[in-house]
Amino acid sequence: MKRIEKIVTIGSGNVATHLAIALKGAGKEILQIYSRTSENAKSLADKTGAEFTNDPMEVRDDADIYIIAVSDDALPVVAGNIDFKNNFVVHTSGSAPMDILKVSSENYGVFYPLQTFSKTRNVDFSEIPVCIEANTFVNGERLKNLAISLSGDVRFVDSEKRKVLHLAAVFASNFPNFMYSVAQMITEDNSLDFNILKPLILETAMKVQDMRPTAAQTGPAIRGDEKIMKMHIEMLEKYPEFQKLYEVLSEMIGRESGKTTG
Amino acid sequence: MKRIEKIVTIGSGNVATHLAIALKGAGKEILQIYSRTSENAKSLADKTGAEFTNDPMEVRDDADIYIIAVSDDALPVVAGNIDFKNNFVVHTSGSAPMDILKVSSENYGVFYPLQTFSKTRNVDFSEIPVCIEANTFVNGERLKNLAISLSGDVRFVDSEKRKVLHLAAVFASNFPNFMYSVAQMITEDNSLDFNILKPLILETAMKVQDMRPTAAQTGPAIRGDEKIMKMHIEMLEKYPEFQKLYEVLSEMIGRESGKTTG
Repeated sequence: MKRIEKIVTIGSGNVATHLAIALKGAGKEILQIYSRTSENAKSLADKTGAEFTNDPMEVRDDADIYIIAVSDDALPVVAGNIDFKNNFVVHTSGSAPMDILKVSSENYGVFYPLQTFSKTRNVDFSEIPVCIEANTFVNGERLKNLAISLSGDVRFVDSEKRKVLHLAAVFASNFPNFMYSVAQMITEDNSLDFNILKPLILETAMKVQDMRPTAAQTGPAIRGDEKIMKMHIEMLEKYPEFQKLYEVLSEMIGRESGKTTG
Repeated sequence: MKRIEKIVTIGSGNVATHLAIALKGAGKEILQIYSRTSENAKSLADKTGAEFTNDPMEVRDDADIYIIAVSDDALPVVAGNIDFKNNFVVHTSGSAPMDILKVSSENYGVFYPLQTFSKTRNVDFSEIPVCIEANTFVNGERLKNLAISLSGDVRFVDSEKRKVLHLAAVFASNFPNFMYSVAQMITEDNSLDFNILKPLILETAMKVQDMRPTAAQTGPAIRGDEKIMKMHIEMLEKYPEFQKLYEVLSEMIGRESGKTTG
């Protein structure tokens, strides 16, 4: 079973960038970065000692794996435009089924790092769970070896389960982050320093590393403190949509409390 | 100006517990714990070497400060039942005005630690921002000295601003925690391990320690990925209220994206 050493990455967004840099750091050779857009991809190629191309016909044919890290919309287009010559091809999407790559190669799979990536922020890949899937046992083992060179938490997850994880991740990450935005807006609109909330934000996330979220819930809604909730709703008068959001979420939290205690 | 060394705490909930233990750890003397309910308070009295009483007439009159850490509903009752003999009295509420203590003593203030407390979890008080307020300059300085013996972040915040911080804290902590509960429910209902989401939860909170939340936003809604959002909404069919929540939050995030780019 040939180890994966030579890699072509396709895409130059957040995931492609962090992944290519981490793979390089793990001693892998990034042969080439392919991307339709040039600027990001060139800078990523420089950082990883890779070639760059924006021509699908110029994608090299001597890599051990082709990692497609593009948006779900672009995925079928990219997969269809490049001739992978039956080399091993994987995508990094949370929601696209593995079989979307069936037309591209006889050897295919998925490498989904379950994390939120922003270009300006470094991540420690060893802490990132990686969900993998492959069309054959041998491809699965090759992909697993690649994944464990980066991460301490590698799991085989099929396409259906991966889709569910992606949905759960929206609630675990994207929605909480939006709540932080609202908190920032409320503080800044009142000439208050958002920084004062940062230890609270961090502790809230730290708590659920050890406790069940339902047990970690605090605040007026779980206490059933109607007076405070009424006051908060009045204070949100200037922001009708956040007012409605506050009401709806407080009701849901209140019902959760009812479920756990009664 | 007499330093605050001898303390009576009133209440035995999460805040009272963590605060009394932290004050003891900072070398202060906890004279007495008063609480209407006995069990928690007795255990807290044991931990801090304090006396315990559940009789408001038995509250000692020789403390430098009386810290009332009870629910907002109980606050006026407690404040009215105890004769503080014009000693220094503070409450720990995010939302109750300072003046609620005016009837209790000529010396009063607020000591509001901006954090989420759960009994089973230890906290490092030095990392917790403390918002203080007092009715006179001297009381303010005394309270400040007490607060900096615990925390590296002590700020004077008046009652109006503190109320706003409390509201923002609901969005910064209580609502994100509820989102974690939903994520846990989605994973567990599908026989998936919630633990796989924990690094994502933590990184999402870590990101906004350095980045603005609006800049840190990722996921289908900010990308405008209608196909994924539609699929997620279909997947939530079994949970109509979370389905609605997903739609509403995604719309809000989408509008936020419109605001930043257009």
